[in-house]
Amino acid sequence: MRAVVIHAAKDLRIDEVAQAGTLGPRDVRVRVEAGGICGSDLHYFHEGKIGTILLKEPMILGHEISGRVEAVGSDVAYIKVGDRVAVSPSRPCGACRFCQAGQQIHCLDMRFYGSAMRTPHVQGAFRETLIAEASQCHVVLPHLTAGEAAMAEPLAVCLHAVQQAGALLGKRVLVTGSGPIGALCVIAARRAGAVEVVATDVTEAPRATLQQVGADRFINVAAEPDALGAYTKDKGAFDVLLEASGNAQALVSAFDVVRPGGVLVQVGIGGPAMVPLSMIVAKELELRGTFRFHEEFALATTLLSKGLVDVKPLISASLPFTEARAAFALASDRSKAMKVQLAFS
Amino acid sequence: MRAVVIHAAKDLRIDEVAQAGTLGPRDVRVRVEAGGICGSDLHYFHEGKIGTILLKEPMILGHEISGRVEAVGSDVAYIKVGDRVAVSPSRPCGACRFCQAGQQIHCLDMRFYGSAMRTPHVQGAFRETLIAEASQCHVVLPHLTAGEAAMAEPLAVCLHAVQQAGALLGKRVLVTGSGPIGALCVIAARRAGAVEVVATDVTEAPRATLQQVGADRFINVAAEPDALGAYTKDKGAFDVLLEASGNAQALVSAFDVVRPGGVLVQVGIGGPAMVPLSMIVAKELELRGTFRFHEEFALATTLLSKGLVDVKPLISASLPFTEARAAFALASDRSKAMKVQLAFS
Amino acid sequence: MRAVVIHAAKDLRIDEVAQAGTLGPRDVRVRVEAGGICGSDLHYFHEGKIGTILLKEPMILGHEISGRVEAVGSDVAYIKVGDRVAVSPSRPCGACRFCQAGQQIHCLDMRFYGSAMRTPHVQGAFRETLIAEASQCHVVLPHLTAGEAAMAEPLAVCLHAVQQAGALLGKRVLVTGSGPIGALCVIAARRAGAVEVVATDVTEAPRATLQQVGADRFINVAAEPDALGAYTKDKGAFDVLLEASGNAQALVSAFDVVRPGGVLVQVGIGGPAMVPLSMIVAKELELRGTFRFHEEFALATTLLSKGLVDVKPLISASLPFTEARAAFALASDRSKAMKVQLAFS
Amino acid sequence: MRAVVIHAAKDLRIDEVAQAGTLGPRDVRVRVEAGGICGSDLHYFHEGKIGTILLKEPMILGHEISGRVEAVGSDVAYIKVGDRVAVSPSRPCGACRFCQAGQQIHCLDMRFYGSAMRTPHVQGAFRETLIAEASQCHVVLPHLTAGEAAMAEPLAVCLHAVQQAGALLGKRVLVTGSGPIGALCVIAARRAGAVEVVATDVTEAPRATLQQVGADRFINVAAEPDALGAYTKDKGAFDVLLEASGNAQALVSAFDVVRPGGVLVQVGIGGPAMVPLSMIVAKELELRGTFRFHEEFALATTLLSKGLVDVKPLISASLPFTEARAAFALASDRSKAMKVQLAFS
Repeated sequence: MRAVVIHAAKDLRIDEVAQAGTLGPRDVRVRVEAGGICGSDLHYFHEGKIGTILLKEPMILGHEISGRVEAVGSDVAYIKVGDRVAVSPSRPCGACRFCQAGQQIHCLDMRFYGSAMRTPHVQGAFRETLIAEASQCHVVLPHLTAGEAAMAEPLAVCLHAVQQAGALLGKRVLVTGSGPIGALCVIAARRAGAVEVVATDVTEAPRATLQQVGADRFINVAAEPDALGAYTKDKGAFDVLLEASGNAQALVSAFDVVRPGGVLVQVGIGGPAMVPLSMIVAKELELRGTFRFHEEFALATTLLSKGLVDVKPLISASLPFTEARAAFALASDRSKAMKVQLAFS
Repeated sequence: MRAVVIHAAKDLRIDEVAQAGTLGPRDVRVRVEAGGICGSDLHYFHEGKIGTILLKEPMILGHEISGRVEAVGSDVAYIKVGDRVAVSPSRPCGACRFCQAGQQIHCLDMRFYGSAMRTPHVQGAFRETLIAEASQCHVVLPHLTAGEAAMAEPLAVCLHAVQQAGALLGKRVLVTGSGPIGALCVIAARRAGAVEVVATDVTEAPRATLQQVGADRFINVAAEPDALGAYTKDKGAFDVLLEASGNAQALVSAFDVVRPGGVLVQVGIGGPAMVPLSMIVAKELELRGTFRFHEEFALATTLLSKGLVDVKPLISASLPFTEARAAFALASDRSKAMKVQLAFS
Repeated sequence: MRAVVIHAAKDLRIDEVAQAGTLGPRDVRVRVEAGGICGSDLHYFHEGKIGTILLKEPMILGHEISGRVEAVGSDVAYIKVGDRVAVSPSRPCGACRFCQAGQQIHCLDMRFYGSAMRTPHVQGAFRETLIAEASQCHVVLPHLTAGEAAMAEPLAVCLHAVQQAGALLGKRVLVTGSGPIGALCVIAARRAGAVEVVATDVTEAPRATLQQVGADRFINVAAEPDALGAYTKDKGAFDVLLEASGNAQALVSAFDVVRPGGVLVQVGIGGPAMVPLSMIVAKELELRGTFRFHEEFALATTLLSKGLVDVKPLISASLPFTEARAAFALASDRSKAMKVQLAFS
Repeated sequence: MRAVVIHAAKDLRIDEVAQAGTLGPRDVRVRVEAGGICGSDLHYFHEGKIGTILLKEPMILGHEISGRVEAVGSDVAYIKVGDRVAVSPSRPCGACRFCQAGQQIHCLDMRFYGSAMRTPHVQGAFRETLIAEASQCHVVLPHLTAGEAAMAEPLAVCLHAVQQAGALLGKRVLVTGSGPIGALCVIAARRAGAVEVVATDVTEAPRATLQQVGADRFINVAAEPDALGAYTKDKGAFDVLLEASGNAQALVSAFDVVRPGGVLVQVGIGGPAMVPLSMIVAKELELRGTFRFHEEFALATTLLSKGLVDVKPLISASLPFTEARAAFALASDRSKAMKVQLAFS
């Protein structure tokens, strides 16, 4: 079996790897079809690390995948051979105090696909075949493409981000950063009932896509640095910020335009930010982090299957996994691509 | 009538000022008895400003006061001549969109005693006689001293801070900064049901007082820089931080000891802080500001009257208002004083 | 000017009434275009009362209206002559303790159009011309019909009901009672992100409309009394009930199908219900009431204007107001009509 | 080993039963010291059932117990031989969807001591020796008596009830029903920061005890049927009801005295109640159930150990377990007893 393996910064290879292993009674064997390239995959590719997490050994990348079911274990009831499934990369232990409190995201023994946080690293899912637990596999309806199904994972991230913001029905929402995560935040906020959604970026490229997926307005803050000023009146116009850029400046600029008592959700992962505490105090703002997802993965697949969200505008390109290096290069060029996926079969 | 007036940094005078004015039908005339010196009074005294708010004209200081009722307007039903009252310094407009939403703290036309935020400045309450609206005046039971009654204001600040943290019953709380606000946060957190309260400071002076008012443990982080390390296990031991020092380092040090999903309430006002966004994200922390109070002023007076909180250990000294300069000097010396009050009659 | 006046049960007349009065500086004069007949109008018509609220004098009915602006007062800035507006029938006092706490719905001095709760009764809006405060008037975009604009009021009721249920993103929702309020609850729940919405009724008539506005499934519980049984597995399938029938049996039947910790929102107004407290205890259910709306009226007009909700399928018929009796008869026949409106010009 | 066994209504025996079994690596063997008689024990004793749950076979009663540790399994680290422990009777499965969501109270496979809900029944803890899982055993400080430690269980019930009510700091609370659960609700509400607590009962007996544990006022509603009327002004004075009587009339009478938006927590288990839905709607009240406890058991033991709550006034009598019938008779007589406990060694 072949897989997409990162060996070191810039050293991405298509390697022959061992087969997936034995099918247990609660397992499902999946022939992988589509795999989306995520920002964290790009960090490993370009820098050999994410923040302080260093790549220490070769690791199969990938955690946004879908595929066809090839075989199911003896105890698996609801998944059939031939089903298309989206596979959650999240495997909490189920037993630690966080899991027992319903906070699986903070599991003390999490094994998340394609992450170097533990050593040995948890291998990823950019591979031809995968054995996963049935509880990770979510059947999607036949009309969804493999590419759409593979969007369940980043959509789940954004659904969880929106849940962190509380009820959005009737709220005015600012989304900073209009890459795939920002765009999916727009989709999720709209789905949750936001009445106004404004998206920003520092480039012009995402404008058409963002408007297509539901942003009422797109602002290129590089071209229009004063445009957000219109939202500062009476202590701020937005109820909620979804900060999807990971850029500290995007967060800081939002303190002026979020109303007293508003919520700022930090979705993007970046470095430290110089935060004006006096504004957090005087406006009683809430700055919350959001990390990955848990039950939102199942929700993402259901929303996609029911047509309650549409992610097709975000899929810029699909390349054969054997051309992974070209795909990673394309995914790194924001002027040309939103989400780039690999095709495995 | 005499009053305590700040003219510029270090220039504090006892001035003869005009009488309080005419008693309206809903007003109460109060002979001021006690006035606590607050950190903001000290900022005006030492620096002639608070952060970016500059003193532009002479201003009577003071917003933590109590007194005896001398006269009541014709429409005032529940307050009698001779009652002792704590007087709230907060006067929201009642009509703006924040007031109509129950967010009076964020009133667009707030007039708060002894604040240079507006020009002309809103004069304060360090004066012999004061005319206030009846709705500002809260009768306390006779067994309370004037000094205790004057603690209603800073207690209200801390009750509101605790409300921002959500239900505290059974929670583990860290309070950083053990001045009067930190100590009152300990009292408020204990009253709200916190099961463990740890207080810190960078000096040794507050230890005895903090333990007396209910802290399970006091840590002098200057003397024991590693003591908080014991609370980092399994992603952090505290559910809630109440940051009462205004020192960015205190906030930052708490990210390691607050559990995933925990709440950090910024009470103290300070400069910008370099905040590790990656920890806010990965631990899904919530950083909230808290500013002043609204309904908590009435609550503070009731808790004091009923003996449900005891603030006596915090009152270090009471000096005649004519010795205001000495009192301000004493209040500035944390090794000698917690709360210093002025006596007006 | 003519108006639709209820004199006693079954005694509905088209009366000549006095003109609307003088236009104050903050007022707007509206030529009424459309007025929806509400369940409360029907109660006054059929019974001369609603529950314990008795009609004691002739009263103009109507509180779901829209119209064209004919004139605006001197202080009115954002509304222009010729605009189409939806007019909120809700006029809280702004000064009582509920208004000052942001709970205008519970105003101690509420004046709500077409309600006999106070005496003299507050006259309604089924009249040719109306003078309203500018704050009651919400401009809608020109593409909306007068009939759609008049749906803002019942939509606001249902948006508030949904807000009472908390964040609905990803939730499974049961709506009992599929009249106009039930149908609008389906629309509102879907807009707020509900992932599954099941609607019930005791007649077959609403099936097509309910499915058209977004219900995943419609159950005629009279025809299929056991159909809800499929939702009782593992202590209940629904996260939320929106009870829109006012029928006690509908509420009681839901205790079996709402999961532990779920929320039951009582929207419909009916008589007392024999509630199984042991199930509320054992499943820790929450039963909440919802009453009218406040800020949701503005939200309703915005959602309608932006096309984020579509209420057209609910408007069954529009009759000239001079045929009010026929219109009330039609509105009372659930087999023939969902929402019936009166046309005034 | 001897145990207190219920065979049928009124047929309570001291039986010789088999020893506790083998000590597993994570188990603790406890020599039982004190066991409180609960209302559910009394239901089995008097009626041979609780509501619809029928006693079908002999069952050891008891779930409020404490004791001395006699032996610990090989993996038990934090509990030592000789420790006094309070033993939680709650054993959720840890694996079902409720357990994995942090809702262990609703576990699909709960085994709760002394409950006939399952068949074979789960045997209780009124026995001389008990083997429990270490996670059930909570060490208390030596100054606590065995009787106080045995109060951890009903205290945990009331702490959970209070958690269901949200943050209580500054709230006005009505507790209806002043038996042991009502009295512990007063204690818990006070600990959580309630500013006013009024307790009611239909007898005079609990007055002194209720005032001793913190009620501001006790009302015997049989003697003073109109006394609650003073709390109906302006739509109701109380923010929260804790209904601890299980008497439908107590609940219904509270609808008039709880303010709009207030919360009514049903703690006591009783039959169906005729609930005025129109008041739930018009006042937007929230009626919530509360059932048993989970993490609150540990909290109860900590609050007791730290002296943050005092339950001694509630312990009316302690009788040797061999006199269980006399003890049950005494516990059934509210004029003579609050909480009656059995002594086992």
